[in-house]
Amino acid sequence: MLKTGAQYIESIKAMKPNIYKWGKLIEDVTTNPATAAHVKCVANAYDAAFDPELAPYFTTTSALSGQTAHRWNTLMATAEDVAGNAHMKRASYWINGSCTGTICAGWTVLNAHFGPSARCDAKYGTNYHQNLIDFMKECEDNAYGLAGCLTDAKGNRALNAAKQPDKNAYLHFEKVDGGIKLNGYKIQICGVAGCNYIVVMPTTGFGPDAKEFAVVAATPRDSEGITIVETRRPSDTRVEEEGWDGIKLGTTQAFIIFEDVFVPDKHVFLAGENEFAAQVLGNFTNIYRAAIGSCVGGQGDLMAGAAIAIARANGLTQKAFQDKLTNIVMVNNITIGLGIGAIMEGHDDGGAWIPDTALAHTNKVQVGTIPYEAKRLAVEIAGGIVETGCVPSYIDMTSPIYGEKLMKAMDAGSGAEDRIKLTRLMEWIHIGGGVPGCMHGGGSPDTARMLVKGATPWEKYVNYAKKAAGIPEDHLVEVKK
Amino acid sequence: MLKTGAQYIESIKAMKPNIYKWGKLIEDVTTNPATAAHVKCVANAYDAAFDPELAPYFTTTSALSGQTAHRWNTLMATAEDVAGNAHMKRASYWINGSCTGTICAGWTVLNAHFGPSARCDAKYGTNYHQNLIDFMKECEDNAYGLAGCLTDAKGNRALNAAKQPDKNAYLHFEKVDGGIKLNGYKIQICGVAGCNYIVVMPTTGFGPDAKEFAVVAATPRDSEGITIVETRRPSDTRVEEEGWDGIKLGTTQAFIIFEDVFVPDKHVFLAGENEFAAQVLGNFTNIYRAAIGSCVGGQGDLMAGAAIAIARANGLTQKAFQDKLTNIVMVNNITIGLGIGAIMEGHDDGGAWIPDTALAHTNKVQVGTIPYEAKRLAVEIAGGIVETGCVPSYIDMTSPIYGEKLMKAMDAGSGAEDRIKLTRLMEWIHIGGGVPGCMHGGGSPDTARMLVKGATPWEKYVNYAKKAAGIPEDHLVEVKK
Amino acid sequence: MLKTGAQYIESIKAMKPNIYKWGKLIEDVTTNPATAAHVKCVANAYDAAFDPELAPYFTTTSALSGQTAHRWNTLMATAEDVAGNAHMKRASYWINGSCTGTICAGWTVLNAHFGPSARCDAKYGTNYHQNLIDFMKECEDNAYGLAGCLTDAKGNRALNAAKQPDKNAYLHFEKVDGGIKLNGYKIQICGVAGCNYIVVMPTTGFGPDAKEFAVVAATPRDSEGITIVETRRPSDTRVEEEGWDGIKLGTTQAFIIFEDVFVPDKHVFLAGENEFAAQVLGNFTNIYRAAIGSCVGGQGDLMAGAAIAIARANGLTQKAFQDKLTNIVMVNNITIGLGIGAIMEGHDDGGAWIPDTALAHTNKVQVGTIPYEAKRLAVEIAGGIVETGCVPSYIDMTSPIYGEKLMKAMDAGSGAEDRIKLTRLMEWIHIGGGVPGCMHGGGSPDTARMLVKGATPWEKYVNYAKKAAGIPEDHLVEVKK
Amino acid sequence: MLKTGAQYIESIKAMKPNIYKWGKLIEDVTTNPATAAHVKCVANAYDAAFDPELAPYFTTTSALSGQTAHRWNTLMATAEDVAGNAHMKRASYWINGSCTGTICAGWTVLNAHFGPSARCDAKYGTNYHQNLIDFMKECEDNAYGLAGCLTDAKGNRALNAAKQPDKNAYLHFEKVDGGIKLNGYKIQICGVAGCNYIVVMPTTGFGPDAKEFAVVAATPRDSEGITIVETRRPSDTRVEEEGWDGIKLGTTQAFIIFEDVFVPDKHVFLAGENEFAAQVLGNFTNIYRAAIGSCVGGQGDLMAGAAIAIARANGLTQKAFQDKLTNIVMVNNITIGLGIGAIMEGHDDGGAWIPDTALAHTNKVQVGTIPYEAKRLAVEIAGGIVETGCVPSYIDMTSPIYGEKLMKAMDAGSGAEDRIKLTRLMEWIHIGGGVPGCMHGGGSPDTARMLVKGATPWEKYVNYAKKAAGIPEDHLVEVKK
Repeated sequence: MLKTGAQYIESIKAMKPNIYKWGKLIEDVTTNPATAAHVKCVANAYDAAFDPELAPYFTTTSALSGQTAHRWNTLMATAEDVAGNAHMKRASYWINGSCTGTICAGWTVLNAHFGPSARCDAKYGTNYHQNLIDFMKECEDNAYGLAGCLTDAKGNRALNAAKQPDKNAYLHFEKVDGGIKLNGYKIQICGVAGCNYIVVMPTTGFGPDAKEFAVVAATPRDSEGITIVETRRPSDTRVEEEGWDGIKLGTTQAFIIFEDVFVPDKHVFLAGENEFAAQVLGNFTNIYRAAIGSCVGGQGDLMAGAAIAIARANGLTQKAFQDKLTNIVMVNNITIGLGIGAIMEGHDDGGAWIPDTALAHTNKVQVGTIPYEAKRLAVEIAGGIVETGCVPSYIDMTSPIYGEKLMKAMDAGSGAEDRIKLTRLMEWIHIGGGVPGCMHGGGSPDTARMLVKGATPWEKYVNYAKKAAGIPEDHLVEVKK
Repeated sequence: MLKTGAQYIESIKAMKPNIYKWGKLIEDVTTNPATAAHVKCVANAYDAAFDPELAPYFTTTSALSGQTAHRWNTLMATAEDVAGNAHMKRASYWINGSCTGTICAGWTVLNAHFGPSARCDAKYGTNYHQNLIDFMKECEDNAYGLAGCLTDAKGNRALNAAKQPDKNAYLHFEKVDGGIKLNGYKIQICGVAGCNYIVVMPTTGFGPDAKEFAVVAATPRDSEGITIVETRRPSDTRVEEEGWDGIKLGTTQAFIIFEDVFVPDKHVFLAGENEFAAQVLGNFTNIYRAAIGSCVGGQGDLMAGAAIAIARANGLTQKAFQDKLTNIVMVNNITIGLGIGAIMEGHDDGGAWIPDTALAHTNKVQVGTIPYEAKRLAVEIAGGIVETGCVPSYIDMTSPIYGEKLMKAMDAGSGAEDRIKLTRLMEWIHIGGGVPGCMHGGGSPDTARMLVKGATPWEKYVNYAKKAAGIPEDHLVEVKK
Repeated sequence: MLKTGAQYIESIKAMKPNIYKWGKLIEDVTTNPATAAHVKCVANAYDAAFDPELAPYFTTTSALSGQTAHRWNTLMATAEDVAGNAHMKRASYWINGSCTGTICAGWTVLNAHFGPSARCDAKYGTNYHQNLIDFMKECEDNAYGLAGCLTDAKGNRALNAAKQPDKNAYLHFEKVDGGIKLNGYKIQICGVAGCNYIVVMPTTGFGPDAKEFAVVAATPRDSEGITIVETRRPSDTRVEEEGWDGIKLGTTQAFIIFEDVFVPDKHVFLAGENEFAAQVLGNFTNIYRAAIGSCVGGQGDLMAGAAIAIARANGLTQKAFQDKLTNIVMVNNITIGLGIGAIMEGHDDGGAWIPDTALAHTNKVQVGTIPYEAKRLAVEIAGGIVETGCVPSYIDMTSPIYGEKLMKAMDAGSGAEDRIKLTRLMEWIHIGGGVPGCMHGGGSPDTARMLVKGATPWEKYVNYAKKAAGIPEDHLVEVKK
Repeated sequence: MLKTGAQYIESIKAMKPNIYKWGKLIEDVTTNPATAAHVKCVANAYDAAFDPELAPYFTTTSALSGQTAHRWNTLMATAEDVAGNAHMKRASYWINGSCTGTICAGWTVLNAHFGPSARCDAKYGTNYHQNLIDFMKECEDNAYGLAGCLTDAKGNRALNAAKQPDKNAYLHFEKVDGGIKLNGYKIQICGVAGCNYIVVMPTTGFGPDAKEFAVVAATPRDSEGITIVETRRPSDTRVEEEGWDGIKLGTTQAFIIFEDVFVPDKHVFLAGENEFAAQVLGNFTNIYRAAIGSCVGGQGDLMAGAAIAIARANGLTQKAFQDKLTNIVMVNNITIGLGIGAIMEGHDDGGAWIPDTALAHTNKVQVGTIPYEAKRLAVEIAGGIVETGCVPSYIDMTSPIYGEKLMKAMDAGSGAEDRIKLTRLMEWIHIGGGVPGCMHGGGSPDTARMLVKGATPWEKYVNYAKKAAGIPEDHLVEVKK
């Protein structure tokens, strides 16, 4: 089923208010300045289903139903499907200029758990896989927007989940009649304000002493017992400001407090079988870190475009900066292409396609590294005003006393207003809310490095070297300690 | 003469209000939240003269008077003096955690013009050099804070100053009885709110068709005809917020409108002798770009310290991140050491010491490049919360409804408050107001690259290569086009 | 048809001698030290068809014949086929420790020309496409090894082909009865010593004034009129030395002189239709530059293995260098994965699969850049001896006077001999013959940058930025000059 | 005293033969192709004393004698003196195109030990400092060339000196009548073939169980009991080849076997006082790693020149590559300037000037990293032929059969010969003998990183951050483990 943006907005408006910011309950997330821009971005993604040029990015044929569906409501069964995820992430930046979290992580959780849930059922006689398939169909039938909740509060990083003095540091469940009850804190969660359902899963693997933390489940955003607090972002007050100071783009990130949140059995996909926590997490990160290359690439497309536009606003042409621009685009191409490569080198996991571990996690490290180079180059092109965003405020630029002179001071031949708007856009992209956590979002580079290490057949490489050098195989063997 | 911070604040308080922000005149820059933090930083630099540990950084013996003076009121006559400038810039970050513009660029202008003003007098019989010396003594006798105004509005970047449709795009003068009158716009000027005097100089070289733009002069900040508008900065509203949201550090950047500002002859150091514009600019950038390595290094010291502190707040030790920390420090050491190297390889210009061109401008390029790597590493250490600053607002964290739970969610073993403050500090350093334009401040990397090119004896190198390869000297010679 | 290595060697031995080195004709390239190592590497690739573990890399089902064939004798009709090329290149380094040029570039020429030859026939009524298919079948039926000749001598780089004073600077043809005659110089050609046929194609596009240079054709390596001279390589005399000094790995690179070489019509695939030169070249570089990521990745696998092995030979474990090793592997993964991504994002060109231009050429730039980082890290792990290869010669290490002491000096706990062999292998990989031109092989990074520029929809990106900033579409438009 | 090159060569010729290569004793190192090029380079450095332009680089006024002396025979008492060392290293590359080891490390040992020897005398009543001064005067009076021997064979890297199964793995002494006797292996020692005296010092610090390894002493190169074996180098046979294949530049690296080598007391500067081993080593690395920036910078000057020359030989101008050339020069400027900065920030150690630890070792890491970037750029400019050195041999290029055609194939408008010579020079610089161990020479980057770590006041930085964030000083303090 496909919804229009307007229909989607209605579905969000109909939910019970449980989101706060600046100490106040947000009565309507579709209009409150703290959340409205994000909801609008998600609505744009819904509307894209009806735009002939964009529909191939934002819709696909559901492998479960055979119907056309919003891409984020479908099973990614093939490499092409996962590549479709990547392409959609890039196109989201084209149309929204911003992260669109509600069509991203929650969907990925469901796909990541496709194989593990079946294996868990096979081992323990649980019914998780069917629950999952049913929920995926429910999502498709209702064209849900989904938030994916991974990051726990984590407490003291030197202690694991079972050892935390405050158990709420990690989300945990207890079994109750007809379902489970959830308690704990999930933090820095993207796209909650715009979702219909929240999907929770573990942020780490768990041992047998930590079974109560091994939970995958879905719950309406406005369930009883859920309190959501939106966080600050760089220059976040600007969203509420007038004139060009208020850029109307936006993601959201929230802290979520779970207090005795009931989830019926049908929406529970893992509850206690701890050995599958690492599996779903592994699959999640492989999909996420392959596709994120195109998300960051989409940001980079915008950055390249903004850099050219501001050069023109400065009276200059693209040619003067072509080397830098080509370098920006090459940075984008690396994270895009390496992610697609990870996808093509992937494998089937019980019906869902999972990208290659070594390449996906190598890409995660790149995503947390090389876009800084692209940003640096864009700022170099754009000039000093962009670097620190140091333009007077809208109220000053329009002051009856000196506003006209300030406008003249900002005019580089094409009028001051475009320059100021681009300055603001560049600030948004490179040091503002438009940078939604590429480095740590979906996990940190150091864990990615560990996974690359784990996925590399070191002894094979040593043997190739020994053969090439003419050294007998039983020389220089690994000493296990 | 040495002033205390309190005496300095009195001198600023006594000035006539002519600075605006948010559309309103700031009656007292020493208390208004838009400017107070910067004034406090400058006051700290004055007080440092009376702290035995800090005094060697912030004071020196004046070569002109033989008295102990604030370092920024003295002539830099030797390599050691310029290195003292660099060391002071670094120490300023230690005590202020912020750019302290009022003790930086204005001072550098006076030194940069020491040689050129004398050469101009020799050529044209002007009296600029003595005016300059007298003003330097006046600065020392009154312990002035100085702003240095280089950046003009510039208008259309494809046209030079003389061709701009709006002449105000570059500051210009006309001669009047007893002095000159200044008109035009200077923009993105650091530290104006905290200065006693503004020193203006050209932002580029000028040909004979642009003599009216070739002006170096000093004028009180509150002169008749000067209107100053403070610009925005990333997350700038936070300065006015309560609790830990309001970080009390700060620089300022201003647009300055000059309208018929009269400057008496004694404060005029160049007015029309266009060929000396490039000379003073060259000297300025050589000093500035050698010393800026230590300024950026000071930021880096703070960044390394903040990264360790936040690791501890996360329950971890420095050891887990030692490689990254050492890399951060090496980035700092490169810009610091390369700048000092530029100073040591410098030369005397009529009594003022000027660092080496090739090394100083190579450092400028580094300063606009490698600190991004240090920031990236610091954010990698600090974790996801720091990357986007995504902590709920102070008002949410202290909400009677859910504040306590949010605080628990932020507690990683050492209490939530320290983590939040460090998160805020890291945001300030890496994507906030604490990054005062390292890339474009004092000029852009591309002009630095051109100067490096110009300062390199390419044909000498070709000849070394030909000799090493056994190729006759008259082979492969340069073809002039 | 599949050949064993021995059968292949017989086919090479049967050819007429026309290859020279050190001023002498090489009577038997399969035994002469200048070429034997390369022939042996190619033979290993033939033998791999019969090794169950390696066969999937080195063979595939031919789309033209439906038979199992050596991979390098087949049409690459799908993304999977081109990925198979990439995987084989990597595996070649595993088994050979060296470039195996004879199974690489010639094959790629045939595939690159698949689409253009058909388009040429459609336009001009020529028969090139069928000739090409027939020759591909001939290659498969005879299991030929092929060299691909692109690089012309080029003469003065400031002049194009038609303007060269010496026409031989570019290979050119004239039509004769029953075929064409070739004249000119091709230089730095890989794998000629081990091939049965040479395939020539243009190294650049040509205008209508340069039709005689637009030639694609195949000719036996030992055709009348072909003179081949093998070039030097770094440390090339070592191949002929005794003991561990002589590393028995190897590629070859040759200068080829064509003098009135007759090629019958059936082996001519383009002759004068200049507009197709750029097309075949474009396709060639797209395939080559996507697949080269895995070739370089295979070198990197060996480098990682050699670094671990030498650490062990030094008495140390992998753990001490794990960060550096993981970085080496990530460099490999980037070029491998980005190449595969280019392949997946490719398109069908009349039956042959052509990788994406922007991603393939971005990968070319990476291949010419980041492996230097991997090499640097490997040398850092391996230590000073490896950096400069500074071990005494085999004859010194075995000297009756002092050899025993030198051996003791080289013994780090696991015997001197393994350390020395690994030192030699590392020299081979990082500054020796094992580095067969990753930067310029298959074209230079600057042309790749131009192709990336050309493949990027800049105005689309500008429009995304304008939309995000709220700037009307008709502002800041491109000014065509 | 100053010697001419000819006088120096006489002094070398007069020494007893004890150097071997290719299994044979070298009767005259001044003419044998394995060593002659190095001796010639050293002779050039002697002759430079009599060239008005070069004399300021290669001579100075001795602080010990007040006489003009070869710079490498003097005490470096001031920052200017150490900077003079750096400048001379750069100029050596200009005149020699090669490392000139004989005027480098041995000299540095004597200076490094100036302070420690005095402290040792003060503590133990030894006479080392006076011995050292006397020997420095002897060097000056005789204008000696000196080799500096640090690197021991080291044996198993996982064991320290006292634990090695073969004690010769580290050079050690025993006291005998009137002096000491030395035994053990020193390896990879530069410039031995051209020196009059060898100066030995430890390659690491030693504990009280390893006193016998703590030895600093000087001995004639041809002392009884010394056997020297020259090592191979990349493409080392070329030195003995004819025509342009034989590049006549050169350094040497040797393995040295000490067997009961007697050193009289007057030439012993440390023998058993183990705590001073680390001190002299620390001083040595500080001087060496500050000055090496200019050595590598000199290589870079040559590389830039060669790149321009080869571009011209290819028919192109510098302009097409200016960005890359400027980047090469900036790499040079970084290591040069950072080294000079380390020198300026140094301190006096009992009469000798010692550069700053943190900056000198940061420079060591740069020297082992960023020149790879310069080399990469140079190769990118120079083209494919240079990358792998793939030109036919001199004998082929002059073959009566095909030589003329090969020469035409290499002619890019300015004749083939210059192109070939430059190709050979570039190979020499970037993957040949001209790269004398910048990464590991004088110690490895990882030890430099440890020293940077040790020289950084981390807790000070933490305190600055806490102050800036408003966190009490007793929060987040270091936990000692």
